[in-house]
Amino acid sequence: MIIDLDLQSEIPIYTQLVQTIKKGIALKELVPGEALPSVRSLAADLGINLHTVNKAYQLLKQEGYVFIHRQKGVVINPEGVPKADEVYVEKLKGDLEPLIVDAICRDMDEERFIQLCREQFKKFR
Amino acid sequence: MIIDLDLQSEIPIYTQLVQTIKKGIALKELVPGEALPSVRSLAADLGINLHTVNKAYQLLKQEGYVFIHRQKGVVINPEGVPKADEVYVEKLKGDLEPLIVDAICRDMDEERFIQLCREQFKKFR
Repeated sequence: MIIDLDLQSEIPIYTQLVQTIKKGIALKELVPGEALPSVRSLAADLGINLHTVNKAYQLLKQEGYVFIHRQKGVVINPEGVPKADEVYVEKLKGDLEPLIVDAICRDMDEERFIQLCREQFKKFR
Repeated sequence: MIIDLDLQSEIPIYTQLVQTIKKGIALKELVPGEALPSVRSLAADLGINLHTVNKAYQLLKQEGYVFIHRQKGVVINPEGVPKADEVYVEKLKGDLEPLIVDAICRDMDEERFIQLCREQFKKFR
């Protein structure tokens, strides 16, 4: 799995790291039970701070993407990522709203917005 | 226009304020050329810091939602919000990606995701 960080980006490094690992899961490049590099080795490989990697792993843990074992280290949740439940759907609605408000203010057609969503889904098939 | 802030929310107050004003524009409750309250009076009305209101207005200005006149104060962009251009579409794609990656990881069906988008669009019609 290639981790490609943009150190010049406005997006914090830990967010980029979280996003890259989630993309790996979506693309099935990372499978349930698969071990991720230790905090120390990933930080060294990427030339970033230990705390940055740790923050990314903790966020992934909170969202149920990874387990952190004292001995085995960080592994992709062996039972798979938790399915979309009500709490998740409510969060998603809240996250979609500002994007849709912007689109409406900018006179973007609903069908164009939907098309952009479908294009993104296609990338992961 | 009712501005309903959630002071307990994880979402920063200035973001809530930006979002409320954008929603007002999407719902056509706020129309091009309409004056918004001054920084001072909005801060007093809402019981929040001047800097918070100022930050919200500056962000809205950067995105082309409002104009800040030295004399007339803050007004909704009289020419309307800038239309969806290529820069905006690229930004939107970038904002959609993490939501769609999450949805895929959580086994949410593409059609369910699209349905949630359509429901949000409906709220503003």
